[in-house]
Amino acid sequence: MTGTMHHTTEIVVRGYHHDSYGHVNHARFLELLEEARWRLFEDRIGSGALRKDESPVVVVNVNIDYKVPAKLYDTLVIDTGLESIGNTSAVFRQRITIKESGAEAVDAKVTFVAVDPKSGKPIPVGGKLRELLDGLR
Amino acid sequence: MTGTMHHTTEIVVRGYHHDSYGHVNHARFLELLEEARWRLFEDRIGSGALRKDESPVVVVNVNIDYKVPAKLYDTLVIDTGLESIGNTSAVFRQRITIKESGAEAVDAKVTFVAVDPKSGKPIPVGGKLRELLDGLR
Amino acid sequence: MTGTMHHTTEIVVRGYHHDSYGHVNHARFLELLEEARWRLFEDRIGSGALRKDESPVVVVNVNIDYKVPAKLYDTLVIDTGLESIGNTSAVFRQRITIKESGAEAVDAKVTFVAVDPKSGKPIPVGGKLRELLDGLR
Amino acid sequence: MTGTMHHTTEIVVRGYHHDSYGHVNHARFLELLEEARWRLFEDRIGSGALRKDESPVVVVNVNIDYKVPAKLYDTLVIDTGLESIGNTSAVFRQRITIKESGAEAVDAKVTFVAVDPKSGKPIPVGGKLRELLDGLR
Repeated sequence: MTGTMHHTTEIVVRGYHHDSYGHVNHARFLELLEEARWRLFEDRIGSGALRKDESPVVVVNVNIDYKVPAKLYDTLVIDTGLESIGNTSAVFRQRITIKESGAEAVDAKVTFVAVDPKSGKPIPVGGKLRELLDGLR
Repeated sequence: MTGTMHHTTEIVVRGYHHDSYGHVNHARFLELLEEARWRLFEDRIGSGALRKDESPVVVVNVNIDYKVPAKLYDTLVIDTGLESIGNTSAVFRQRITIKESGAEAVDAKVTFVAVDPKSGKPIPVGGKLRELLDGLR
Repeated sequence: MTGTMHHTTEIVVRGYHHDSYGHVNHARFLELLEEARWRLFEDRIGSGALRKDESPVVVVNVNIDYKVPAKLYDTLVIDTGLESIGNTSAVFRQRITIKESGAEAVDAKVTFVAVDPKSGKPIPVGGKLRELLDGLR
Repeated sequence: MTGTMHHTTEIVVRGYHHDSYGHVNHARFLELLEEARWRLFEDRIGSGALRKDESPVVVVNVNIDYKVPAKLYDTLVIDTGLESIGNTSAVFRQRITIKESGAEAVDAKVTFVAVDPKSGKPIPVGGKLRELLDGLR
């Protein structure tokens, strides 16, 4: 993530994050990563800016490695960086480390595209959206 | 639930319904009850009718007893009945029985009000909505 | 909640808390209330104390009023107090206020019973558990 | 998925599957895919067989493309096939098609490893587990 301005946030594992295996469910991790991205936007751009943004972005790919299970009371340190911005897409890389053990639990890439608010078709990342994303680098 | 036309549906407990206690999480049960109500509407009214309905309803109260924990592979039998329709509200009663043991796991009352689609304020249950609800009795 | 030592925590509404109605889903609120209780335990008792506790508690009733919808970017102020401790049960009262408008969104009572870790049957709230709960008043 | 015995199941999109974007949330899709895999196991192996299996498997990677948003009342047709079985891992491929439009909404690969129930370390896919997985091809 060289050249990227990292954002770090913490979430403590609760009982409701678990499944019957006794660790955080693999789908729940995507919610925790989404929460970290909302916090990044909030901290760096402000929710007001987002609110006015008229170029919605949608997730088109998630590629996520689960390395070590996360257990009750673990503190998850979620590191988020904007890895790249292309013509129509942007890729966030997010890593989750367990604070207590230092072990890496999750390593994920989440790819977004900008879409036309009416047609829902991908459009170039431009104007205000590009400006906002550049502010995250 | 005398006088009510019951609707019954089944959902099998999966690992992702659980929490760290090893049984279905108490919040998840509200989703399972919501799923049962969607199926009731689908079976009795048809999703097309719902789609055209311009009188949205919102949940204003849930009063739910958790009696016996639900475990992995249990088949939940969810019985839903429209208990009453008032001037501005309607009450559904939903009971969940565990098929294998016959034990009652959940007994809930879910109260809805009709709201004005613009103001969000409660309005009398009338017109098409009352017609639809009457069809559930 | 006279006589109760309140605990207050904040959660910002994100897109994934919503449902198709454009506001926080009624089942999701139970998760947000659960999160607030975990934070209460963490802040007042410490997760270490909980970890060693051998008297599990389970939710037996939730009675929740939904008063005003919560929307994207709203800051939810969740106030939690231990309302009463009985022989076998304890009742938490939790209120959610929307910080920006001051409106009360949710008012809930959540009743727990202590259960025997082996049989799962309700047992008197005693020993270490009563001590912990007394520490929350 | 040549050579694979497909399993197909249907799930109708409900309001609680959505997020503030007005379509099924990207994390929720992982739950829907998990539900489809549980149904596959149930239909092909029987839950009794799974219950006795002493070789747990855990998800180590999900690579998922989101192609077309899924909306309220869409019927999701989830096709699941066991794509490959390696020495320590197995890969399921799952595709979701929207019944009404025929559009492909999701294309995912989900990789599992067998782990030692005590250490949690990956172990060869052998014995009863390999037998069960072979039964899915």
